[in-house]
Amino acid sequence: MDCLKKKILSEGLVLSETVLKVDSFLNHQLDPSLMMEIGKEFAKRFHHQKISKVLTIETSGIAPAFATALVLNVPLVFARKQKTVTMDTDCYTAEVHSFTKNTTHTITISKKFLSADDHILLIDDFLANGEAAMGLIQLVEQAGATVVGIGIVIEKSFQPGARKIKEKGYPVESLVQIASLQNGTVQFLNEVNHYE
Amino acid sequence: MDCLKKKILSEGLVLSETVLKVDSFLNHQLDPSLMMEIGKEFAKRFHHQKISKVLTIETSGIAPAFATALVLNVPLVFARKQKTVTMDTDCYTAEVHSFTKNTTHTITISKKFLSADDHILLIDDFLANGEAAMGLIQLVEQAGATVVGIGIVIEKSFQPGARKIKEKGYPVESLVQIASLQNGTVQFLNEVNHYE
Repeated sequence: MDCLKKKILSEGLVLSETVLKVDSFLNHQLDPSLMMEIGKEFAKRFHHQKISKVLTIETSGIAPAFATALVLNVPLVFARKQKTVTMDTDCYTAEVHSFTKNTTHTITISKKFLSADDHILLIDDFLANGEAAMGLIQLVEQAGATVVGIGIVIEKSFQPGARKIKEKGYPVESLVQIASLQNGTVQFLNEVNHYE
Repeated sequence: MDCLKKKILSEGLVLSETVLKVDSFLNHQLDPSLMMEIGKEFAKRFHHQKISKVLTIETSGIAPAFATALVLNVPLVFARKQKTVTMDTDCYTAEVHSFTKNTTHTITISKKFLSADDHILLIDDFLANGEAAMGLIQLVEQAGATVVGIGIVIEKSFQPGARKIKEKGYPVESLVQIASLQNGTVQFLNEVNHYE
């Protein structure tokens, strides 16, 4: 997705060999027009799938997932990272470790928003080690629902997340794939055929 | 906003005299079409204002704020509730107490996303005691920027938030105003003239 690559090259900050900061357009300040382009692109890539709901995880996944759900005209559910006093006790839960923040938390989703006949498109902003995506997959599997695929805005292809998820048999569509962040430089993976 | 009132009456759950749960369409599962109607309504109510950015606070404010920013065609910034390792150290900060969760946290926004010439529309899902809104106002004031107004999806008018913010001189536009949650029932405040 060329407009996203350009945005990464012009505004992204490489903080280390594993951390790319994109807070000017993706996870602190958001560009609504770009986000809608992202939503349209995910809808296009999964157009051959039956999708009943989009699922993401708070916080940075919400905007791209919302744009996708809007284009697909289906509800969006976001998993919570911790229970609040107004949440159901009746939740599906999974443990997710964040390597960036070096924390482990429980992600939860109310059972009433996932049912066995749901066909779920997972959306998230980043895919690195795959912890968040695997946690979301676990929530869907607990409900007996179907994961139709995982849409990722920025995949760090030098980390094992995408491989792990594909090995489980789930299609991954990443709008941008980053091969390396070495020497303070973003190197994209060669284009792949997304519409095989 | 009649469609929102209907949704509250049909899907909202009154958990106590102060807590209304609307997780089926506002803060866990989201209805993207309703959210766009909310965005259009906020844009209409503040159409006479110059707005350069929409500001909200994670998590539940993001979807209605995104819809509003999309309609207004301006960037959206969401304040963070805690620092992450990828955040700037160069942030505006404010303390916010949540009575619902009985916690106090620091909200932060990177200084590079708020400047003195910004005209900021604040959007949030709920207004109760006004702690989150007052925190957001503090962030904007630290930047020397202008708060053009505060748009609230659901105002709990029996709590002091709206009054406190209006006393500070900021216009508040609430799409729905709830007069009481007593006896397990949602009672709306009488319609007010929004376009004075």
